[in-house]
Amino acid sequence: MENKDKVAMAERYVEAFEKADIGIIREIYAPDATVEDPVGTDVHQGLEAICQFYENSLGAGAKLTLTGPARCAGNAMAFPFKVTLPGMEIEVIDVFEFNDDGKIVSMKAYWGPDNLRQL
Amino acid sequence: MENKDKVAMAERYVEAFEKADIGIIREIYAPDATVEDPVGTDVHQGLEAICQFYENSLGAGAKLTLTGPARCAGNAMAFPFKVTLPGMEIEVIDVFEFNDDGKIVSMKAYWGPDNLRQL
Repeated sequence: MENKDKVAMAERYVEAFEKADIGIIREIYAPDATVEDPVGTDVHQGLEAICQFYENSLGAGAKLTLTGPARCAGNAMAFPFKVTLPGMEIEVIDVFEFNDDGKIVSMKAYWGPDNLRQL
Repeated sequence: MENKDKVAMAERYVEAFEKADIGIIREIYAPDATVEDPVGTDVHQGLEAICQFYENSLGAGAKLTLTGPARCAGNAMAFPFKVTLPGMEIEVIDVFEFNDDGKIVSMKAYWGPDNLRQL
């Protein structure tokens, strides 16, 4: 998988939130993917659990803005962004791991209370 | 381990490069730690291999500047920074995982050719 295709995935991910389009989430994740958001909490396993998790964030009106370049390495990519929700902002770093089909097999989101700012 | 202690580790890490002090590296890593830098390349296992790896970077005069807030989550932390070397800059995201003693047990560095800029 080329780095430009990984970077396009970060942009597609932002678009999923922009359009509140769960179809994009369904398209970019592998069937057996895992999502841990934030790291240290229960892992969502499999596409159905993952879509259910995202339905909540999309429904809450979360929007993403990239705050620096994506860093591609091996089969993975880390990228920094800001989540804007009504009344708050959160600074996050996501790490995606990709499979040979170019789908996300693992997502880990790094953020904590110190990264949350009331607006 | 409290988040403020994790953030202090990122600052200590920057200091190790600032002072080219391998003693700080030896102090912040666990004896059985692993370092994968960048992700997708051979893993350095154990403190001796890790110190040898850092001797090279410290010797090359690499300096680090944090470019955004550290994101603490669970037993881990992700943080974005810039590495400055003679003639070039690299945008990196590191992920540290900590053990119960507050030492780094795993470090993964995310960066690739697209994150390198000639000065």
